[in-house]
Amino acid sequence: MRDLSEASGVPVATIKFYLRERLLQPGEHTHPNQSLYTDSHVRQIRLIRALTDVGGLSVSTAKAVIGVLDLPGQSVHSVLSLAHRAMAPLATTPDTAEFRDARNSVDALLYRLGWDVSPDNPGRDGVAIVLSTVTSLQQPQLTAVLEPYARAVESVALADLEAVTAAGAAHADRDAMVETAVIGVVVGDALLLHLRRLAKEHISSGRLSRPPFGSPSPERPRTTDPSEEM
Amino acid sequence: MRDLSEASGVPVATIKFYLRERLLQPGEHTHPNQSLYTDSHVRQIRLIRALTDVGGLSVSTAKAVIGVLDLPGQSVHSVLSLAHRAMAPLATTPDTAEFRDARNSVDALLYRLGWDVSPDNPGRDGVAIVLSTVTSLQQPQLTAVLEPYARAVESVALADLEAVTAAGAAHADRDAMVETAVIGVVVGDALLLHLRRLAKEHISSGRLSRPPFGSPSPERPRTTDPSEEM
Repeated sequence: MRDLSEASGVPVATIKFYLRERLLQPGEHTHPNQSLYTDSHVRQIRLIRALTDVGGLSVSTAKAVIGVLDLPGQSVHSVLSLAHRAMAPLATTPDTAEFRDARNSVDALLYRLGWDVSPDNPGRDGVAIVLSTVTSLQQPQLTAVLEPYARAVESVALADLEAVTAAGAAHADRDAMVETAVIGVVVGDALLLHLRRLAKEHISSGRLSRPPFGSPSPERPRTTDPSEEM
Repeated sequence: MRDLSEASGVPVATIKFYLRERLLQPGEHTHPNQSLYTDSHVRQIRLIRALTDVGGLSVSTAKAVIGVLDLPGQSVHSVLSLAHRAMAPLATTPDTAEFRDARNSVDALLYRLGWDVSPDNPGRDGVAIVLSTVTSLQQPQLTAVLEPYARAVESVALADLEAVTAAGAAHADRDAMVETAVIGVVVGDALLLHLRRLAKEHISSGRLSRPPFGSPSPERPRTTDPSEEM
């Protein structure tokens, strides 16, 4: 157990917690007080860390995602569908006219985009909830971002697919593809949001750094901390 | 209070909670047992809902973001920076060689992209944590997604900027721009992740739905639920 902690860089107490929660498979019992752990355990622990720390998943969601990884004989596509469902259990959708309108707009958007998506993909309701919120906040300008966002995630999904295909080619087995696909889903969400923070600063720095509708402020060097403007 | 609950669609108990947590400004006291609430309160409640329910922010983070909105005289850019920092308090970064390598790769990526980003943008560490995780999981294929992801969020940030500019043009005031900008940050994250689920299914449905390295499965109509493949 101590060796496992050193190899994975995760404290013994945390590993015991993973075992108790059945996130981690137990080692082989060799002595009454000793278990044998292998490289596969180190790998499993790293995966759990990726899902919970980087992906921000709860323990129960991480357990569901890992459970999906262990299903035998699934196509990569269906494992991905299952992983998505495990990560986003269907939210209770509000039974309001606004929500139904938003849901119809989402269906129309998907039709316009030509996207081939099953009717029960939880993303449909997810986008509709965002859309009805934006409408209730009287932010019509924000609905205009839908199509550019959709085009952007389309290229993100293509990049994901290429990574999964490359993993399959490198290892010539399904398990490697599935693992890359699922890690890509979870870790990719985090990556997207962090990169968005960077892109937002880059894009807005030149154009929104002056007080709008006021007199132009003098040019500042761009290495200063924006919070110093206070 | 009961009227406010009806107008906003939020239960009285929740509104009391918002008042207690100082998320919501108190109404004007008109009688010992009565307060006057205005349309501005309805709007505030909707904003709180958007931040907590749709954006998934904790109460304390939502309070920090709303606090940023109320700062007078800030440029839209600096309000956005502050909102980003409120939403992503600096994570403690691991002091490992792997993390430092990843951090250097992120700096190199930003240089290659030509992005103008301050050294303390929390996205730098965020991307580096994802990158070092992917490396420790031995998923080199996933590092190849960095550049396409970056290009995608660049167009997302441009769409955000256009929405903010449109809000400014429609209302000709800074507060409207700031509000649209901050709502866009929070709600946009959720939108991006939900749209990604849809795009992923669309992109992978045609290409990964057959068991890899096996015999081709017969064509299925794409309206069936992928989970039925189990």
